[in-house]
Amino acid sequence: MSSNLALLTDFYELTMMQGYCLNHYNPDTVFEMFFRRPPFGGGFTVFAGLQPLLERVAELAFTAEDRSYLEAQGLFRPEFLDYLSDLRFTGDIWAMPEGSVVFPGEPLLRVHAPLIQGQLLESLVLNILNFQTLVATKAARIWLASNEGTVLEFGLRRAQGVNGALAASRAAFIGGAAATSNTLAGRMFGIPVRGTMAHSWVMAFSSELEAFRKYAEVYPDSCTLLIDTYDTVKSGLENAVVVGKSLKAGGHRHFGVRLDSGDLEYLSKQVRQRLDAEGLQEAAIAASNELDEEIIQQLLAQGAPIDTWGVGTHLVTAKGDSALTGVYKLAARKVDGRYQPAIKVSNNPEKISDPGIKQVHRFYNGSGSPIADLLATEEERVEAGRDYRFYHPRYPYKFMDVTGAKRVQTLLEQVMLGGKIVTEFPDLPALQGRARANLRSLDHTYRRILNPHLYKVSLSEKLKDLKFRLIAEYAGKGTGA
Amino acid sequence: MSSNLALLTDFYELTMMQGYCLNHYNPDTVFEMFFRRPPFGGGFTVFAGLQPLLERVAELAFTAEDRSYLEAQGLFRPEFLDYLSDLRFTGDIWAMPEGSVVFPGEPLLRVHAPLIQGQLLESLVLNILNFQTLVATKAARIWLASNEGTVLEFGLRRAQGVNGALAASRAAFIGGAAATSNTLAGRMFGIPVRGTMAHSWVMAFSSELEAFRKYAEVYPDSCTLLIDTYDTVKSGLENAVVVGKSLKAGGHRHFGVRLDSGDLEYLSKQVRQRLDAEGLQEAAIAASNELDEEIIQQLLAQGAPIDTWGVGTHLVTAKGDSALTGVYKLAARKVDGRYQPAIKVSNNPEKISDPGIKQVHRFYNGSGSPIADLLATEEERVEAGRDYRFYHPRYPYKFMDVTGAKRVQTLLEQVMLGGKIVTEFPDLPALQGRARANLRSLDHTYRRILNPHLYKVSLSEKLKDLKFRLIAEYAGKGTGA
Repeated sequence: MSSNLALLTDFYELTMMQGYCLNHYNPDTVFEMFFRRPPFGGGFTVFAGLQPLLERVAELAFTAEDRSYLEAQGLFRPEFLDYLSDLRFTGDIWAMPEGSVVFPGEPLLRVHAPLIQGQLLESLVLNILNFQTLVATKAARIWLASNEGTVLEFGLRRAQGVNGALAASRAAFIGGAAATSNTLAGRMFGIPVRGTMAHSWVMAFSSELEAFRKYAEVYPDSCTLLIDTYDTVKSGLENAVVVGKSLKAGGHRHFGVRLDSGDLEYLSKQVRQRLDAEGLQEAAIAASNELDEEIIQQLLAQGAPIDTWGVGTHLVTAKGDSALTGVYKLAARKVDGRYQPAIKVSNNPEKISDPGIKQVHRFYNGSGSPIADLLATEEERVEAGRDYRFYHPRYPYKFMDVTGAKRVQTLLEQVMLGGKIVTEFPDLPALQGRARANLRSLDHTYRRILNPHLYKVSLSEKLKDLKFRLIAEYAGKGTGA
Repeated sequence: MSSNLALLTDFYELTMMQGYCLNHYNPDTVFEMFFRRPPFGGGFTVFAGLQPLLERVAELAFTAEDRSYLEAQGLFRPEFLDYLSDLRFTGDIWAMPEGSVVFPGEPLLRVHAPLIQGQLLESLVLNILNFQTLVATKAARIWLASNEGTVLEFGLRRAQGVNGALAASRAAFIGGAAATSNTLAGRMFGIPVRGTMAHSWVMAFSSELEAFRKYAEVYPDSCTLLIDTYDTVKSGLENAVVVGKSLKAGGHRHFGVRLDSGDLEYLSKQVRQRLDAEGLQEAAIAASNELDEEIIQQLLAQGAPIDTWGVGTHLVTAKGDSALTGVYKLAARKVDGRYQPAIKVSNNPEKISDPGIKQVHRFYNGSGSPIADLLATEEERVEAGRDYRFYHPRYPYKFMDVTGAKRVQTLLEQVMLGGKIVTEFPDLPALQGRARANLRSLDHTYRRILNPHLYKVSLSEKLKDLKFRLIAEYAGKGTGA
């Protein structure tokens, strides 16, 4: 597969781009990417996908083959095709730090570029950020449900395509997974890889005990035995005890068993009791089989002594919400040398965009916990210690006063300047560390898996005034020339 | 991204492979890939992903970088790493024709190879076939719900990653979509691409009418106007009528409008009436906005005059079932020069595999409609005109007699021999044609979107006897050396 993704774009972006080009209409613009609700009915979202996105934007270019392909469509004129051949992204991009906890309505990414370039980026931005943010958020929910436990991402075989699997492994690690089963993801992204045996190993030998012994011979210090091929308690567990004791007697460590079927609460308790009775207190119990955050939370609430969670399908395909509802909207357009705020109106107030070039400010209390986020116009100065009125984004008569915030963090940072990446990308463990620190700083009511407290994203007074003025002005715009 | 996917494998495949290698245990084996239930509660499944899978299998090889990466994991011995460096897939593969309608329990793919090679393929087989088959099936459901209408796949921005989008576009086309919005998928796979304008085009001009006129100037013969940016009926429709009549007066064709919000039944009827009243009977109405097969079926049942369906998120992420439950199981292993059937037993009868090397035979009635599929051992000769007893795969006392079938089609064909592809790949329109012909040949009760008739996949008498004999034999296998 080509790594140059200029053509990875909805065809209408190209037809519109030609329309702008032939009309010689290409003003400077600002587009913002945001989403409208947190996935999975949760209270937070973990932003991911920034580095892969920026790396692709930096290298975007239409090849000669791309040009021939477009030419053959019969819709594009040579003048526009020449224009495309020379096109590179030369704009600026501002973004949330990857791994940050983010909330609905706030820009995660802001693209400053001529209209045609801004339009070209739409599909790529949405494809990469929507999916990685979705999976990072799912992983964070699972990690929290496991009481910050050890979550292994095992989703390769059920992921949505090759890159679906690779991108999911990356995002799942950022969101909190400790390791992946996907070896290529391990090599590409430096994620720890894990895995021991499948049922096919056990079936390949003439008895379960022989299969376990053969495995322990090869991996005496990394031996997790899958004990549910025949009968978990009567056969698998007893054979595992034999092998585990023999490994222990030989001075080996990191022994464990894995359950992949049956009632995980009942079985894990039986297994723990038996292992302990045989002096194998340090043997770990791993569980897998269609797990998700709700099942894990319930198992732990009922005292299941499970140490490690293998989560596959439901993590990498983001069970419950197969897509993040991220959108990419025009925020401003330069007219006569000055940016004019743009707004997308709709009969549905939820779908009216917040106009203008915006910055996001996070207000913290004295314990370092976020109170709320304030969207303000880019030129507003927002700082700790001052009092601010936070306006509801849809009801202009609703507000709250935030006084005495101990710290204000300005979230959007410049990451691209004139088409060049101007940020250092942290490695994945650092991104995971950021996500964990962000999650831990949130009041626990926002981290609840079900029915969380709603974190407020508000408008500054100036932005609120602008928004409702523009809504009034736009009421008459649709009706004619 | 590297196109060589040797490392795109669950890590436990590699630990098991080393285990077999160091034990000098590498018998000839046969693995079969099958799934346990049709997705979306439907009655059929469309097989897709074969060509991309085989192309990758044919080129599988561990690179020097792969080797270094594995070496650094500290688990693998030089002897095994040398072995991997020389490893290529040298086996045979049999498969269903891509685009075929398939059913639960029957092998879609059969891999004949030494154990270590067979094991290596598992993750790749499942990743590619599970996802493409899932999306092709979703597309077929949507195509059927639209009364074999024009379905456009618009999913790029919500798809699960870059390749998730590309693979989804390919599979959606096989399943019945007429075109994609994903331009790169169009170039890579030869799928027709479609797309016109977004709301951002309409908002980029000083009025809706100006935006429509500018678009029509550039695309007079391919002009679909998005009419819901401001007010669909009062503004968008009226402005579209002005532009449509002017195009018609100029002798242009292929004019249409698109609805992307609101009540699609009400609006499409209003729009149709008004277009007709203005002499624009040939103008097409396209609809989009979170569509799926159930919504489309309902709109058509209520007489919504919609000509073209743009389907995005729910098609490419396979709403309702984010993964196909495909598995890859050992079917036979050579012992002393002869294949011995293998079975995966389980406390859950649904999860007991059918043993041995199998072939799938589809029986047709005189009208060319499939009656049922028969799984038989590979060496059984099954032919039209003879009578067969079809046994239920889980209840040995349940059977039906199939007499006088007019045609029997043997479905698994050899596609790889000694690691080389030995089949011609049809182009995508041919695969789509096969899927459509297969779907049309099914009795309509199997094609129902909800609560379909259950298509029977049965065992031959010989296979039934083998299965239940092995289950009895395996009862004692787990308990010791």
